[in-house]
Amino acid sequence: MKDAVIGIDIGGTFTKYGIVDGEGKCLVENFIKTDTHQEFDLYLKELVDAVEEAKKSLKGEVAIKGVGIGAPNGNYYAGTIENAVNLNWKGVVPVVDKMKKYFPDIPIVLTNDVNAAAIGEMEFGGAKGMRDFIVIALGTGLGSGIVVNGQLVYGHDGFAGELGHTKVVHNGRDCGCGGKGCLEAYASATGLKRTVYELLADRMIDSELRDVKFNDLTAKMISEAAQRGDAIALEAFERTGKTLGRALADTVAHTSPEAIFLSGGVANSRELITVPTKKYMEENLLPIFRNKVKILISQLPDMNVGLVGAAALAWNELKK
Amino acid sequence: MKDAVIGIDIGGTFTKYGIVDGEGKCLVENFIKTDTHQEFDLYLKELVDAVEEAKKSLKGEVAIKGVGIGAPNGNYYAGTIENAVNLNWKGVVPVVDKMKKYFPDIPIVLTNDVNAAAIGEMEFGGAKGMRDFIVIALGTGLGSGIVVNGQLVYGHDGFAGELGHTKVVHNGRDCGCGGKGCLEAYASATGLKRTVYELLADRMIDSELRDVKFNDLTAKMISEAAQRGDAIALEAFERTGKTLGRALADTVAHTSPEAIFLSGGVANSRELITVPTKKYMEENLLPIFRNKVKILISQLPDMNVGLVGAAALAWNELKK
Repeated sequence: MKDAVIGIDIGGTFTKYGIVDGEGKCLVENFIKTDTHQEFDLYLKELVDAVEEAKKSLKGEVAIKGVGIGAPNGNYYAGTIENAVNLNWKGVVPVVDKMKKYFPDIPIVLTNDVNAAAIGEMEFGGAKGMRDFIVIALGTGLGSGIVVNGQLVYGHDGFAGELGHTKVVHNGRDCGCGGKGCLEAYASATGLKRTVYELLADRMIDSELRDVKFNDLTAKMISEAAQRGDAIALEAFERTGKTLGRALADTVAHTSPEAIFLSGGVANSRELITVPTKKYMEENLLPIFRNKVKILISQLPDMNVGLVGAAALAWNELKK
Repeated sequence: MKDAVIGIDIGGTFTKYGIVDGEGKCLVENFIKTDTHQEFDLYLKELVDAVEEAKKSLKGEVAIKGVGIGAPNGNYYAGTIENAVNLNWKGVVPVVDKMKKYFPDIPIVLTNDVNAAAIGEMEFGGAKGMRDFIVIALGTGLGSGIVVNGQLVYGHDGFAGELGHTKVVHNGRDCGCGGKGCLEAYASATGLKRTVYELLADRMIDSELRDVKFNDLTAKMISEAAQRGDAIALEAFERTGKTLGRALADTVAHTSPEAIFLSGGVANSRELITVPTKKYMEENLLPIFRNKVKILISQLPDMNVGLVGAAALAWNELKK
């Protein structure tokens, strides 16, 4: 019999779950829809039933030692999801307390998805052995997880690591948070797309992206256009890296990490984003920090980063 | 016999030293000049002799358990001072190694002055019992010390917490670091003074500060003018708080502290600086962080903050 944990990654549309061993391998995984139920209790029942099915499929080969959950606006201290805009359940949802009824004898821990991914990077990815690093997830928005002295930074309220909402342009682009000029309005899949449209307005040069509607455009299409040498796409990556690199120089001045890992959709473009990010970060660093901080691509599997991160959160808790 | 530690605060002109008990009380204190000797070894000999004298004056009442040192560009991990611009000794000075010859049997620890002050705030000041907070020292420059999970953030290289060099204005004011637009060029005693001169240029209103030479102007004079209702001085504090508050909103997005303590010369102006700082920080915070973070004045004695901080560093090390 092998020790394992349950990893649960709650997203706006799907909830992925799986049983994960101590090396970060998913022994079984599946998903349910997140948004079927308006009531959290009904959703939770469906999720737990599905997890029990998954466990049965392993035919008693594993002993479940803990549960890790990654969720938007997840509060590690309280075990709650708080006012998550893209979920059906409003206000404060006591996820861990409710889950305890089903798993009374094992630790259950919850944090936000990118915090969980940062612990995943430390337990199973490129940050093994590192004590000070940061994960930046460039998806629809920009999420971040900060590790200091080998511990995730939760802050006094459980919500630390919201680098997507540091301000990079005074009175700049509208952000989903209600503010203006936030980093994620520039450095994210959505930010990259907005920058393409800004450039299509600013420049008179030709681009294959002039034939794509705003609502159809994806980071992947911009990446592919850049690989074909499209000048607008290339400049969009350069500008995105410039904004991100400058912001990361300020972040380095806070916690001086050994490495910053990029993950999420935009990170799949690899050197297109890491090269300008590194260049502009270095240009803006205090001399004492120069040529010390690596910009790396996450080594967790892109499809399963949330699930593996949630499992890593549980494994990390079991070590405490 | 009472346990005590030696605290040493190395500044550009003076080195303060003292013997400090477990409650942060200086049992004896004095200073030597820092810049008398070009050679570090000669300086160290003079310092150790002076410390031994101080110890003798206590007539065997104390048992010295450790040494804590605060110094510019102090590296906690290596125990070195590295390329400090305002000290005679160039390059990397192995302070702790050399000090070990004189105190071979007790722990000796070193960090930069504001990191030490942050530990002082936690051990003996307003941050007692807090696990996540930040100290911002508004002196000639802006120094900072960040505490996360009850531990000082040193970063992978020992130099974390350089918030004075985060960028707040693109291509803004020249900074002593060689960069442009750094926070400390705006939010510090020097930054406040530069803002007064900017306002004297921008505005046509009368001010008592129009009769003061740039080289004579101090933060204390600006504070006193503001207390007398001088409009330029009042606006200078407002602008300084605006820049600092905005920057601190970004800092909160990193580590979500319970409180931010202001210390140093500008902090002596109390509400003149805390009120606008708090106001503009709140305006720029992500909703999840609003009305949670206190802006407080350091509770360490202004004259002795470096010495008490250095001693606190030693006490903190002894607890590990």
